[in-house]
Amino acid sequence: MDRIRLAVLGMGRQGQIHSQNIAYRIPQAELVAVSDITLERAAAAGIDGVDLYDDYREILARPDIDAIVIATSTDTHEEVIRAAAKAGKHMFCEKPIATTLEAIDEVLAVVEASNVKFMVGFNRRFDPTFSQVRKLVTDGVVGDPMIVNITSRDPQPPHLEYLKVCGGIFFDTTVHDFDMARFLTGDEIVEVYATGSVLVDERIGALGDLDTTMVTLKFASGAVGSINNSRRTGYSYDQRVEVFGKRSCAFGNNETPTRVEYVNPEGTHSDTPLYFNIERYPEAFYGEIRAFTDCLVNDTPAPVTGADGRKAVVLSMAAKKSWQENRPVKISEIG
Amino acid sequence: MDRIRLAVLGMGRQGQIHSQNIAYRIPQAELVAVSDITLERAAAAGIDGVDLYDDYREILARPDIDAIVIATSTDTHEEVIRAAAKAGKHMFCEKPIATTLEAIDEVLAVVEASNVKFMVGFNRRFDPTFSQVRKLVTDGVVGDPMIVNITSRDPQPPHLEYLKVCGGIFFDTTVHDFDMARFLTGDEIVEVYATGSVLVDERIGALGDLDTTMVTLKFASGAVGSINNSRRTGYSYDQRVEVFGKRSCAFGNNETPTRVEYVNPEGTHSDTPLYFNIERYPEAFYGEIRAFTDCLVNDTPAPVTGADGRKAVVLSMAAKKSWQENRPVKISEIG
Amino acid sequence: MDRIRLAVLGMGRQGQIHSQNIAYRIPQAELVAVSDITLERAAAAGIDGVDLYDDYREILARPDIDAIVIATSTDTHEEVIRAAAKAGKHMFCEKPIATTLEAIDEVLAVVEASNVKFMVGFNRRFDPTFSQVRKLVTDGVVGDPMIVNITSRDPQPPHLEYLKVCGGIFFDTTVHDFDMARFLTGDEIVEVYATGSVLVDERIGALGDLDTTMVTLKFASGAVGSINNSRRTGYSYDQRVEVFGKRSCAFGNNETPTRVEYVNPEGTHSDTPLYFNIERYPEAFYGEIRAFTDCLVNDTPAPVTGADGRKAVVLSMAAKKSWQENRPVKISEIG
Amino acid sequence: MDRIRLAVLGMGRQGQIHSQNIAYRIPQAELVAVSDITLERAAAAGIDGVDLYDDYREILARPDIDAIVIATSTDTHEEVIRAAAKAGKHMFCEKPIATTLEAIDEVLAVVEASNVKFMVGFNRRFDPTFSQVRKLVTDGVVGDPMIVNITSRDPQPPHLEYLKVCGGIFFDTTVHDFDMARFLTGDEIVEVYATGSVLVDERIGALGDLDTTMVTLKFASGAVGSINNSRRTGYSYDQRVEVFGKRSCAFGNNETPTRVEYVNPEGTHSDTPLYFNIERYPEAFYGEIRAFTDCLVNDTPAPVTGADGRKAVVLSMAAKKSWQENRPVKISEIG
Repeated sequence: MDRIRLAVLGMGRQGQIHSQNIAYRIPQAELVAVSDITLERAAAAGIDGVDLYDDYREILARPDIDAIVIATSTDTHEEVIRAAAKAGKHMFCEKPIATTLEAIDEVLAVVEASNVKFMVGFNRRFDPTFSQVRKLVTDGVVGDPMIVNITSRDPQPPHLEYLKVCGGIFFDTTVHDFDMARFLTGDEIVEVYATGSVLVDERIGALGDLDTTMVTLKFASGAVGSINNSRRTGYSYDQRVEVFGKRSCAFGNNETPTRVEYVNPEGTHSDTPLYFNIERYPEAFYGEIRAFTDCLVNDTPAPVTGADGRKAVVLSMAAKKSWQENRPVKISEIG
Repeated sequence: MDRIRLAVLGMGRQGQIHSQNIAYRIPQAELVAVSDITLERAAAAGIDGVDLYDDYREILARPDIDAIVIATSTDTHEEVIRAAAKAGKHMFCEKPIATTLEAIDEVLAVVEASNVKFMVGFNRRFDPTFSQVRKLVTDGVVGDPMIVNITSRDPQPPHLEYLKVCGGIFFDTTVHDFDMARFLTGDEIVEVYATGSVLVDERIGALGDLDTTMVTLKFASGAVGSINNSRRTGYSYDQRVEVFGKRSCAFGNNETPTRVEYVNPEGTHSDTPLYFNIERYPEAFYGEIRAFTDCLVNDTPAPVTGADGRKAVVLSMAAKKSWQENRPVKISEIG
Repeated sequence: MDRIRLAVLGMGRQGQIHSQNIAYRIPQAELVAVSDITLERAAAAGIDGVDLYDDYREILARPDIDAIVIATSTDTHEEVIRAAAKAGKHMFCEKPIATTLEAIDEVLAVVEASNVKFMVGFNRRFDPTFSQVRKLVTDGVVGDPMIVNITSRDPQPPHLEYLKVCGGIFFDTTVHDFDMARFLTGDEIVEVYATGSVLVDERIGALGDLDTTMVTLKFASGAVGSINNSRRTGYSYDQRVEVFGKRSCAFGNNETPTRVEYVNPEGTHSDTPLYFNIERYPEAFYGEIRAFTDCLVNDTPAPVTGADGRKAVVLSMAAKKSWQENRPVKISEIG
Repeated sequence: MDRIRLAVLGMGRQGQIHSQNIAYRIPQAELVAVSDITLERAAAAGIDGVDLYDDYREILARPDIDAIVIATSTDTHEEVIRAAAKAGKHMFCEKPIATTLEAIDEVLAVVEASNVKFMVGFNRRFDPTFSQVRKLVTDGVVGDPMIVNITSRDPQPPHLEYLKVCGGIFFDTTVHDFDMARFLTGDEIVEVYATGSVLVDERIGALGDLDTTMVTLKFASGAVGSINNSRRTGYSYDQRVEVFGKRSCAFGNNETPTRVEYVNPEGTHSDTPLYFNIERYPEAFYGEIRAFTDCLVNDTPAPVTGADGRKAVVLSMAAKKSWQENRPVKISEIG
């Protein structure tokens, strides 16, 4: 394909971002249609000349559309993926693929059989900073990874309503960091130990969830790692990675709005990091969609696969089990 | 006006950037038409649904166009501004307004009489870092400025052909830094002393120009300053400012592509700053056009005026005279 | 006491450093005598006018000596402490107090009964950077600690002969980080989970030891933490701490020899951190002896107690047990 | 000579620092005697076993003393140097050598004839950061220098009494920066242009002096430079250098007390730089005396010569003349 004709399903915040990137920043892609549950919502991205639908199945029925971006609510993913596979549409799907391991396995089997490309939206892999850390590993500058430390903290907790349905911190937050750990090292995690507390908001604890966690990683190579998460920094999105290898130690640090600093008798002062993912990851959101269209144009494998999406969920399950039973859990125990 | 209908004249690199920002990033603005000397060149920005012209006068003749962006070659500015003023179009004009002080004064008088808004494109004022330094001054965090240091160095010299017609380093490069010095301090420069050398390329010297310069500034308030320029760093665009005031010293430092660093036995290594203005100033290019459309929507004064554009040229003239005569030159000597 | 008369026992590298700090940098302290197993070794510090002994008991017999610094080999600590307590000398003792928990408890009981001051040499508490992080916690700038991350990596492994007798990485290296975690938070660790690998040198594994470790901490307050250690960075001593609290996140970063950086097309380059503890901690070595003499002059409690020394050993034991049994270990299981 | 026997003349703050460095930190040097105008003042350094004098001539009369450090008041330098040269003592002399060019030339002729070594105390050359920047130049990492920028600002102005006798800001402050510019580049300054204001304290202006200055430098190679000085930052000693060369741009940045930073909603905060020269330059003070004793032990030329001391004074004179006449001044005009 020379030019990819795309539709975006779901016009929430993420769907709007994808729509704008496709329409404005990717010359080889054309945004043909978008859908949401009402036409009013479908119009949210506000891009001229795009067909609007309140039923995504009409999009799947159009033969002139090559590929779709699935940004609908998580509980619809399974149904949409099955229908799109049947319709022969290539898919970019926001994580998670589905909410149970069985459902994921079934859906991935359908996708596999249908011969369409399928990419999972782990956007952080496409952040310029983190992808450069990965490059330092693949280029041999870092050397074999020995220790990986990942910090991932939100500025403020989400609404309680969201917290009730998100599956818990390991599935909602740590899942991204598990993928990051695999991405940065190119290695597989074989065992995790998870612990944590409720230090931010007791209502989170009342839901049976944690808001402050530390997960220890053991990799197949023998490398070790840690992931620390918090639901609330108060200051900003705190997203940092460190890969300590046999030749050097590489850091992916936070981005800031400006490069201003000033010094006075109280100290030297610079910016707080960017506030949250909308501010922090615009280039990552662009990059993942760009990578998706690239793999269609060049007929190369999707750079983040269904297996990657599945693996992150398995690791989240292992972390939850580890916390519940207060013992290290081998990934092979989960599936 | 609620929504501004705009045209961009000149589809060189800068005109294309403005076109894309208007078309994609400013909801209150609509890109209606673009022009260049051929229709083929006019099509360079590649934005769907925009009318193309090979004669800018056809754009000026359209009553449905509110404002224009002048990104044509410098020698056409005078003619275009006169015609646009007559046609009652608001104007955003790339610097310089014209190449002689007389022409600038005449053109500004025409604009003044025509009652249209006129903004000059000193983009760096809209860079997030430099505008934040300015904010620290206006907010009183810096205190009264006492010393201002500006570094402005290009990664590589432009082509010789360009060097022959650009008016020399003071008019082509330092002019931006003069505007920056005025912007950061909110103060007027009253005297300059300029010196320099040919250290980068002897062919630049053969043109009667310099490639390495140091200009000393004296402000009305008694504050002092320096601007250092080089036509070649070899590494990247080096664009930094420092304002030392009675309460603190503020720095606007270089931007880098990522926030990666790694440490090995040879040292701690991070990115080279962004390569050149296309990489360094996308937000400034966006910000200046955004500010232009804002001043039209809100009917407020243009944030960078014709007088600002004139002043920067006067300062460049003073610098050149200072260098030629090797003595400090009062700005009042020029005009 | 106005002026403290001190002797240093053991003229290895650490004893020499203590001797020079006492003789040259602490006006309220006087270095009266030093000892080692031969007079030749005792003379190693090379300070004029100090009495030399090849038997530390002669020092203890001198009534004009107020206090001693115990920098002899670990296996002698127990005997020296008992004898010094009997002789009524105040003591600064390098860690560990002794090698078994029973011996530590017996010795601390003797010290307690003798009414002399006893301080354990956890020097890092007196490093300007780490003590400032602690101050940000005690001043309330950090807020209640929620996550603590400690990195502690040596530039090169010690000699194999040393590795055989040092008790293993948890007792030789992590022990300092356990003390740091307690110091920074002012909180007690209640549970640890330790894992690790042999990635640096297989001979370390052949000794039944690890060279790359990750220890998860759970504090009484619910705060969580991680300590990562490596026997080899190749670049330098990598000693960093992070305390993430309810109000801010504080970092204690590495020191470098200079503040030079340079930028070229390959990147921006600055120093590798200081090579090892001799280079990194001169102010901490000075500070701990200064604090010891201060507590004698002012008759205040020793700032690092025998109980602190004991606790760090208990935590090391828990870490070793955790690793051996691959399960989280409660500190109350150890003693 | 294997071991140098030294005396320090003048027990002001600087003399005390030199005394302690000689006594405690330079094994090849021995502090034999010190002098000041009363024995009480001579005792100020408080070092045991050193002979005290209230007449420096008694020190010069002692044949067992090899070399002296001249830290007496500036107005005595000429007399002391003449007497010491006659007595055959090697000399380390605080700047300036004398207060008039004639006196400097006469004194240097006497020193030359006497065949003793003579070193001037430009301590900043021995600061680890600035000497590393110099090394990057001599190693070719920087390439031929093209632009040099030096910032040198005091935290607070000195007492008015001192300001009256110090010779003005160019002789008291900029003199160090002139030496730094020569040191960093290895190049000679051929022309200066100086301007400045009174922005800190009107009483400084009433003395006919400036408190805020900018000096432009032109080097023999064609390189250009700037030196900016202020008598008051309010925050700390601000001492930074930048050498921009054909291969890279090197920076010598400020030192801070610690490496702590913390981030909260107001920003990212780290230390204010070290407060003043006592805090900032202990290693430079040590380094210069160490270099002096090294050149005696190894019989090598003094690393900072009388000619260097003279040149810095000449440059200060040129700057003052430039400011007074508001024109660039060639160094050859002065002498």
